[in-house]
Amino acid sequence: MEQNIYDPTLLLNQEKMVRNLQKMTEKAAASGVVFRPHMKTHQSAEIGQKFKAHGVRAITVSNFGMAEQFADAGWDDITVAFPVNIRRIDTINRLADRISLHLLIESEEVLSFLKKEVRAGVHKRGAGQVGIWIKIDTGYGRTGIPAHEIETINRLASSVENTGNQLRFEGLLTHAGHTYHARTREEVLSINHDSIARLLELKRELLKRGLRKVLLSVGDTPSCSIADDFHNVDEIRPGNFIFYDATQWTIGSCRFEEIAVAVACPVVAKHSERNEIVIHGGAVHLSKEALTLRNGNGCGRVVYGFIAEKGHSGSLQWGGVIEDAYVSALSQEHGIIKAPLKYFEETSIGDLVYVIPVHSCLTVNLLGGFLTTEGKKISLRHLKKSPF
Amino acid sequence: MEQNIYDPTLLLNQEKMVRNLQKMTEKAAASGVVFRPHMKTHQSAEIGQKFKAHGVRAITVSNFGMAEQFADAGWDDITVAFPVNIRRIDTINRLADRISLHLLIESEEVLSFLKKEVRAGVHKRGAGQVGIWIKIDTGYGRTGIPAHEIETINRLASSVENTGNQLRFEGLLTHAGHTYHARTREEVLSINHDSIARLLELKRELLKRGLRKVLLSVGDTPSCSIADDFHNVDEIRPGNFIFYDATQWTIGSCRFEEIAVAVACPVVAKHSERNEIVIHGGAVHLSKEALTLRNGNGCGRVVYGFIAEKGHSGSLQWGGVIEDAYVSALSQEHGIIKAPLKYFEETSIGDLVYVIPVHSCLTVNLLGGFLTTEGKKISLRHLKKSPF
Repeated sequence: MEQNIYDPTLLLNQEKMVRNLQKMTEKAAASGVVFRPHMKTHQSAEIGQKFKAHGVRAITVSNFGMAEQFADAGWDDITVAFPVNIRRIDTINRLADRISLHLLIESEEVLSFLKKEVRAGVHKRGAGQVGIWIKIDTGYGRTGIPAHEIETINRLASSVENTGNQLRFEGLLTHAGHTYHARTREEVLSINHDSIARLLELKRELLKRGLRKVLLSVGDTPSCSIADDFHNVDEIRPGNFIFYDATQWTIGSCRFEEIAVAVACPVVAKHSERNEIVIHGGAVHLSKEALTLRNGNGCGRVVYGFIAEKGHSGSLQWGGVIEDAYVSALSQEHGIIKAPLKYFEETSIGDLVYVIPVHSCLTVNLLGGFLTTEGKKISLRHLKKSPF
Repeated sequence: MEQNIYDPTLLLNQEKMVRNLQKMTEKAAASGVVFRPHMKTHQSAEIGQKFKAHGVRAITVSNFGMAEQFADAGWDDITVAFPVNIRRIDTINRLADRISLHLLIESEEVLSFLKKEVRAGVHKRGAGQVGIWIKIDTGYGRTGIPAHEIETINRLASSVENTGNQLRFEGLLTHAGHTYHARTREEVLSINHDSIARLLELKRELLKRGLRKVLLSVGDTPSCSIADDFHNVDEIRPGNFIFYDATQWTIGSCRFEEIAVAVACPVVAKHSERNEIVIHGGAVHLSKEALTLRNGNGCGRVVYGFIAEKGHSGSLQWGGVIEDAYVSALSQEHGIIKAPLKYFEETSIGDLVYVIPVHSCLTVNLLGGFLTTEGKKISLRHLKKSPF
């Protein structure tokens, strides 16, 4: 099958993917929380079916195009986990008519807009209402209202509750993305613990101030992979866990053998004077997402991907990590691999190199489709990001 | 027209684009060199027509899929400026039958493969031959044979000349990509001068050793934009100049007003405690290509895009650069803009922000289509990178 690969190709090991899914499903069930996985990692209706087969009924997406795509694929309970883009009000109203739609807000300004512009839907499950979560910043510092601003949060939550029929307050949602800066499992556990503690404290305060019900939603992959107990919250929304990648492995979210995707890249040149292998596989395939690995001296090594061993001859499987081999530079279509001598010598022009991407979500988005290790093609069929 | 933009949208100012094209065409003509522009920047058959209208007859591409796409669009003289991916031998033979095809080699191994596997084509212009350039490394250190390895280069060139009918030696080709690390026009001029001097020296040596004819091809956008005189070489192959971007502006390759693309991104949140604007516009729109700008202290500011002023109300034009405003962080779909107070206060949720991308080639590849500032849509219709 290897001989049927001509260009950089995204390989998917479905067995590993299903094991990752199984594990996370069981973890959610053990904590008694709703499992609302993020679909932005794979963007595929076909892979979505695997989630359905594991009992998943509610999902998360990161934009309205993706929400419509998954609604078309039969999903009827979708959270758009992104601060509402009010330019998409027509899509919001279209979706509210079809599915149980959940949105994130973090300002009175957007809430006022939604109060004025959202039409009551007619969907049976949503009872015509759009669910509203307040986005809370528990320390990541990207979006959301800082967790200590209790009065602001209470005012916004009460304002949703006192609205007409079309909006319904659901609770507090956070993405503790600062776990991505962690480099040990202990750090991740500590960030997750602290993040949930802040949400619990907020919930207590809001209930004290008169709110009737406050659900809690959390969801980064490092926390969901490393922590075991989520009984204090109501739902988890990890996405990347379905494939994992070099970043998650570096953090400690997964074992190398659990990474379910690799990019097979043809070798086009070798430079023995610097032990470098040139591959067809660049920024338009792998993305320029980089990991900076600190060595003992505190110096940083910038890595655009790790390299896995080939599996047995002719198969599309890959094996363990090659120590000290990594993608050290990327141009639009070139990748440069720094390799230890043994791997350099074993690798010939025309061979395939198996690159473990730094960030699988971005690589999937760029490559637009998977080839499974059994040789089956899975297309994303995702909506174009541009309107044409 | 602004109100018809819902999602991150790649805007193209065609007037600026045509001026950039005009200028480069005239520069090539003044030096009497072949102008063989690189199409990877725009990947669009429709924009390719503008080049035709300016008298361009020969082009450069970065992969075989793109070569087939442009051959389909009527181009019949194409250089694939990438070390040959031998897995694409069937495509090479298909192309050699249709067009005058030029390939890059840098090893005896690939040359032997081509000698064995390339069938004689039947194309009238190519006289059945595939043109072979030897890729020379004049200091960039990515690909190519180091310019000082005269014997290796001579052996390879002679070996092409002594082949049968199907391959034809053309000359030496380099990409002085180290100009991208320059931050002044003087540095660019110096790198370009040095790079061409090495090629001229090599050419002299090869002619002395018996080669009959050695053409020289150069092509990075910084050199082609800043240097004026290319009479010493035979062709230039710039690509990025058609749009330019934040990187080229930082190097000094263009004026800000010459940048022909911007990404219009909806504002979804504001954080007054840190003067940050959150946009829908992330790594899947802008790419994670970053510029590191050194300030007086030698500290680096990492920038994922600059911000331009809005044009007059309702239009899709953009204006000058906003001093001290920049994209400071990107997630998959979020962009964070650090903004000076005045711009922060003037910008509301639901507004569009005009981001000047760090690397226009990658942004074009991600967004898959343009909206011209007159409101016309241009689709890339490019081949998918994956085989499905």
